[in-house]
Order: sequence, then structure tokens, then C-alpha cells
Amino acid sequence: MKESPTIVAQSTPQGTGALAIIRISGPKAIEICSKTIVQREKFNNAATRKVLLYTIHHPIKKQEIDEISAIKYKAPRSFTGENMVEIICHGGSAIVMGIIDALLASGASMAGRGDFTRQALENGKIDLLKAEAIKGMIESTCEPDLKCAHKLYHGDIKDLSNLKERINSLQSDLEAEIEFGEEEQIIENRVGAREKLKEIIHKIGMELERRKSITNIENGIKLVIAGPVNAGKSTLFNRILGYERALTHHEPGTTRDTVSERILIIGHEVKIIDCAGIRDTSHEVEKKGIQKTLKAIQDAHIVLWVTAANESIEENEKELIINIKGKKVIGVINKCDINDGVQKETFFRLKKLKWFKTSLKNGEKIEILLSWIKKVIKDIYSSLEIPGILFNKRHEDIGKTIFEELIKTEKEWNRKEIAAYHLRNARQALEEIFGAQDNEQILNSIFDSFCIGK
Amino acid sequence: MKESPTIVAQSTPQGTGALAIIRISGPKAIEICSKTIVQREKFNNAATRKVLLYTIHHPIKKQEIDEISAIKYKAPRSFTGENMVEIICHGGSAIVMGIIDALLASGASMAGRGDFTRQALENGKIDLLKAEAIKGMIESTCEPDLKCAHKLYHGDIKDLSNLKERINSLQSDLEAEIEFGEEEQIIENRVGAREKLKEIIHKIGMELERRKSITNIENGIKLVIAGPVNAGKSTLFNRILGYERALTHHEPGTTRDTVSERILIIGHEVKIIDCAGIRDTSHEVEKKGIQKTLKAIQDAHIVLWVTAANESIEENEKELIINIKGKKVIGVINKCDINDGVQKETFFRLKKLKWFKTSLKNGEKIEILLSWIKKVIKDIYSSLEIPGILFNKRHEDIGKTIFEELIKTEKEWNRKEIAAYHLRNARQALEEIFGAQDNEQILNSIFDSFCIGK
Repeated sequence: MKESPTIVAQSTPQGTGALAIIRISGPKAIEICSKTIVQREKFNNAATRKVLLYTIHHPIKKQEIDEISAIKYKAPRSFTGENMVEIICHGGSAIVMGIIDALLASGASMAGRGDFTRQALENGKIDLLKAEAIKGMIESTCEPDLKCAHKLYHGDIKDLSNLKERINSLQSDLEAEIEFGEEEQIIENRVGAREKLKEIIHKIGMELERRKSITNIENGIKLVIAGPVNAGKSTLFNRILGYERALTHHEPGTTRDTVSERILIIGHEVKIIDCAGIRDTSHEVEKKGIQKTLKAIQDAHIVLWVTAANESIEENEKELIINIKGKKVIGVINKCDINDGVQKETFFRLKKLKWFKTSLKNGEKIEILLSWIKKVIKDIYSSLEIPGILFNKRHEDIGKTIFEELIKTEKEWNRKEIAAYHLRNARQALEEIFGAQDNEQILNSIFDSFCIGK
Repeated sequence: MKESPTIVAQSTPQGTGALAIIRISGPKAIEICSKTIVQREKFNNAATRKVLLYTIHHPIKKQEIDEISAIKYKAPRSFTGENMVEIICHGGSAIVMGIIDALLASGASMAGRGDFTRQALENGKIDLLKAEAIKGMIESTCEPDLKCAHKLYHGDIKDLSNLKERINSLQSDLEAEIEFGEEEQIIENRVGAREKLKEIIHKIGMELERRKSITNIENGIKLVIAGPVNAGKSTLFNRILGYERALTHHEPGTTRDTVSERILIIGHEVKIIDCAGIRDTSHEVEKKGIQKTLKAIQDAHIVLWVTAANESIEENEKELIINIKGKKVIGVINKCDINDGVQKETFFRLKKLKWFKTSLKNGEKIEILLSWIKKVIKDIYSSLEIPGILFNKRHEDIGKTIFEELIKTEKEWNRKEIAAYHLRNARQALEEIFGAQDNEQILNSIFDSFCIGK
């Protein structure tokens, strides 16, 4: 067995941030790293897992690169099971590149996708399901998806194991029957087996539905603010932002089709989208604006329809509101300080939609609107069920194959050999979730979807 | 004085990465953090600067969020001078948001732009120039810019102080003269003073030039591969990538106008851009392609013009090559295994351009091409001079103002009061580089340009 290489990569995302982490892992990690550290003796004598400050420089160019924190880990007590160093540096790209270049010049080699996790796998620190769980955790953009990843991480796969057993038992039954022919007792078994198969199909179908509803809230709840021009949409946008601080600030110069901000509401990511105002549709440009708004509404989880109390309601506005009826929509009748807004109130009441009278200028009753929004978000999340078999997108794809093959098995139930063929396909697909470790192809395809630095 | 708040933010860039860092800083940092940690006692008893593993959960929802490393720092021995905790977690957005939400629920508040550095400033851990230097280090995308930031960080500002003294002395002279009138000795001084002024203008002008040449290589050296269709551009692109490993892999699904990759060559970031092939220009679509290629060539530092030995050279190709003559261009005459390429060789020789005969398919002599590229990159970098006054973009803007005001001073030299007025403006602008700490407006404008988490 050849000695595994010592690999290096940035483990935090690209881009400008205050800090970045660079990982070095492999037999020579500590030795290579020490070549780049000015206070070499301090580094060599440092206890493991102790954060100390150093100056890092290029060993050949002899140029200072940054003041860093470095943490040493000794094999096997590290994430990868190898000797490891984590460097916390300032998060600029010139610094990160400079440090990586210094480490390459000192004998490290660049890590490929998932190479750190692969080391951990090879050193028996984690198994494939756990490796995938870590990937799932990193890629989760919402709480339910993170819960899935946690289930997998903690090996809570009883539903999955149970499914495997049930398919195996079904297969034994079917194969026994093919071998021994149709004795009376077997025929009785067959009826039972078909019922079992239907149950399994139902179960997988449910799981696919669960994953679909999670996919639907990936990247957060979409809250769209729409309505006619000059109704107060931007005021509402800023009012909501005023209550909940933005998670990120837009960098200057970023092009944006619609104005949007990401905020946390009751711990969930919400993307607030302020659409262009709807007006007379005779102009081509306006038609485009409406199309964009319609697209935003179509993807939305919540729509706040802002409309002015002192303007009469036009036919095209009515039509738009009725079209989004299925959505979680609330009419925000604004400018009630200058008009009673009865016309619009009546419209919303007749159409059995929620509405809400306010003067956004005065910041009236925004709390009530916010608590309604919170309730809707809570309802969306509490209606979600966490999958017990299909923990991530790879599993979802496999789940679809299993589902299709089982449907075919059921359809061909009376043509035993064909049914057995499809059942075998389903079982093989299921094996891929567990991931046979000797199947290099499956392993590679999983690791290729990892990010570099993991 | 009110107690400063305990603030929290992600300190690594947004996006999906293996790891992320979340910082909490303020009097209650350790107390707040401990509320979110399952192994609370272990955390409370942990030594400072020791990396230990914990499980972090939401204190109200009681939901596990992630397995993390946490590092405690006790005031004043931390970056901010406050109590601090750095949490290294898995780099997924659901995890980062979950942890921030848990910390907010435990009593922290969201940090604004540059708030951590502002704490450090208020606690006297750093001064404004150092704060700006850190920002400069983070924002550096090339080595010379990083060197500027280092100079500032280490307080190497003798040129800057010297300039300040010279402008001050000039101002005293001028004001004395206004007060005491034109005695003979003063007139003599004035001639000397005008020479001094010209020297200063020259110095600032040079500094502005230096900054411009650094700005020019921001985000790396641009190496463009262009030429007719089917000449082997993509082969060359992949050959170069084969020698030097890509810094990042493209995420699937990213839209790209031209194919590009970032690699490190002799420690410098190089962006390799593979342009669409040039062909017959009678088609509208093709014209667009040529325009894009021309734009890429215009911004390029190095152009590799790939052309096939077995194709005759067209007039439009000749024209394009001649147009990029000023650039660092090399003709790559490909497919020399099937044709001697004399026609093209003659063209490059006549036009006094470098050329290079190869068979990219066989990977012939790629090392020679690479060493030529390395030499050009080295030349670009060694021709750069590091500014001694204008260390960053903010300084550059101020430098422009100083330059203009000094030019006006010189122009109005014989109208003493007006000259004095412009000189005062120049001096005031210079003060802004040092950043009067009591000038809240300057401070705010600087911190507003910081990223969140710094």
C-alpha cells in the first residue's frame, strides 16, 4: 500500500469574508505546515487542538502572507484519521491562494472533491452513509432537510433496513414459488405477498411525496409582495425588514431582477421579494413586468397583495388576485388613513380571501400581519414529515427507480419470472442507498458531487 | 457608558463549503454560547484557545443543529478585546442559520458590517489604519495589493508621514507669506516652495500610476486562448489545465459565456479563458462571437493565438492578430504533425511576433509554452512597484483629490489666497487617510464598506 498523499484545500466557500479555513491532511501535514510557519519551534511544540497565533510565509519567496491561527491534530484523532492542520486565516483570495501556494511549495498536493472525507472513509472514521450524511448537512438549506441528514448521521435508518428486509422476504417468496410451483399453500402466500408488495409501494410513494414537499421549501420560504403601482409595496418590504434584521447585505453593484432580501422569521429562512408594480397592460414593457410578477407568485409560499384603499379595483387586478387564490394570499389594504377601503374589503370578503386594513405609512398593525406570516410559516413546517428512507436527492432518484420497478412487479404479478426480474431491479437499486463500499463507481459518483475542501 | 452588546455573525463567505466559522463577541459571549451547547459543563470548564468538540442545539426548540468545534477567548486577549467564541461548524446554510438563530434566541444580536473590527477599535486593540489594513488584506486578490495591506498593517507609513510633513511645511510657508507680505527673502523661499510643490505633485502622480497598475491585475492575470475554429484551442486549454491543477471546480449548471478556469501559475492566480472560435464573419451570430473574443482580448494580459498549420491564413485572421500586437501575444501554430506551417510562420516572423510550432494532440513542447507564460507573468509582477502612500482604493480616491487640489495650487501660485485655499483642501484630504477617530462620518463610511462578520 502506497503512502497516502498530504492534501490541501480551502474548506470554506470562495468569496470575500472575514475568515477562511484551509485544511491540510495526510502523513506529512504537520511537517509540511511547519515549513511555512515563521515561529516554527512554537508550532512544533504546540499541543494538539490548541489555537495559537503564527505568521505564515512562503518558504521559497520568503514573503509574509498573513497572521493566522493554526490547530494541529495528530492521527488518528482527527476528522480524516490522518495528521491534520487547520489554518484559520483572513478570508481574502490573495491570502488563501498565497497560503495554498506556500503549502504546495512545501510538498502538499491539491485536494480533489471530497478527498478529506474519502480519507476519513478509508481510515474507517466514518462509513458511506455517514459520509453522505455530512454532505447532506452541508447542502441543507432548510431545517427538515437538515433533520434528514441528522437521522442518517446518527444511523437512524430503521425504516430503511425494514424496507430492505421486506423486499428481501418478498423476493424469497417469489423465488421459492418459481422453483416449487403452485402448491395450494403457496397460492395463499402469494395473495399475502401481493398485499405486502402494495404496502411497500404505498410506503415508497409516501416517502417520495415527503421529499417533494421538502424540495419545495429548499432555499427558504418565498414571500412575495405584489400589487398595483404606488400601493405601498416597498414601504411594506422595508417595514418587514425593519422588524427582522437582514441575514446578508447586498454587495453594491449586484444586478437584481426583483428586489429581495433574506431574513430569519421564527428561525426559518424567508426570502422577501418585492415585485414591480402592476399597471395598465397595454404596453409591452408592462406585460413583461406582469409576467415576472406572475412567475414570482407562482413560486411563492406566501403572497402579500398590497392595494391602495383610495383607488378603485380594476378588472385585471381582480383577475390576478383570483388566480393566486390557491396560494397563501392576504390582501393588504393600505392607505386606510385617507379612505375606508370598503370596495376592496368587499371584494376580498366575497372571494373568501383574508384581508387586512392598514396604513403602512404610519406602521399601523404591522405586528398583526407579521404574526399571521409567522403562523403560515409554522403551518408549512409543521405539515412536513421527515422521510425515513429517502434522506437526500441521491436517495430520491434511487427511490423513483425502486417505485417504478415495484409498480412493474405488481403489474406483472402473474408472470412470475418477469415480476421477479423487476423485483430484483428494485432490490439492487435499494442496495445503492447503502452503498457497497467495493463499488468504486458508486463511490466515485458520490465523491464527485462533494465540494472541494470536504 | 452602556454595556456593549454581544454580537454574532458568520465570518466566512456565504455559500456551500465544508466548514464555516461563526463569531460571537461581547461581554456575554461565553454565557450566551454555553446556552446552546449540549455539553455545557465541558464548555464552561474548557481552557481558552482550546479546540473541543461539542453538539450545538437550539435552546428553545431543543433540536440538535450540528457537531461543532468551539474556541473560547477571554477579554482582553481576543481579536475584539471582548469575550469571544469562535464556532467552526459544517458549512451548510441551514446549519449556519440554525446556529445563528440559536444564539439570537439566547441573547445575542446580529452584527452589522465591520462590527467586530469596530469593537477591536473601541477597545484599543487596533487603530484605524490597522483596521483598514485588515480590510485591505481580506479584499486583496493579488500579491501586490496584499503587500500594500501588509505595509499598512505593520505601520510602514513613512512615505505617508513624510508627505504630510511636506504639505504642512508648504502650508506654513504660504500662510506666512500671506501674513507678512512679499519681502525679498520670502520671494526666494517661494521659488523653492513652488519646486517643492511640483515634487509633491510628481510623487502623488507616480503613486496613482502604481495603484492603477495594481488595479489592472486585480482578480488575476487573464490568459486568453483565441483563434479560428477547429485550430485546437480547447485542446490547449485542457493541456494547460493538465499541468496546473484548477483552483476550483465549476459547479454544475453555472451559465458561462466563455469557458474559463482559475489556476495558480508560479503562485499567481491566472484565469484561462477559452474563446469561441473565429470563422467567416458574414453571419450575424458569428459577428457577435468575434465581438466577445475581441473584448476578451482587450482585457487580456496574455493572448495565445491558436491556428492550424494546415489551413491557409485568412485576411480577417491577419487583421485580428495585428490588432493585438501591443499585447503579450504568442502564435501557437498547431497540427505541425500534418503540415509544416510555413505560411503562418512567415506571417508571425514578418509581423515580429513570437510564435511556436507544435502538435497539441501529441502534447508536443507544451512545457516550452508554459515556461514562456511563466516568464511573462514574472515580468508583469516584477514591473509592479508597491505604493508607499496610497495603500488601497479609499486612499486612491483621496489621492486623486489631493492630486487635483495640488495641481490647482500650482496653477494659482501667484494668487496666494486661492493657492492657500486649494492647499488646505489637499491637506484636509490627506488627513482622511489617517482617519481622525472622532470623525464619526469617516468612521461610518469606512465600516459600511466592511463585510458582515468582520
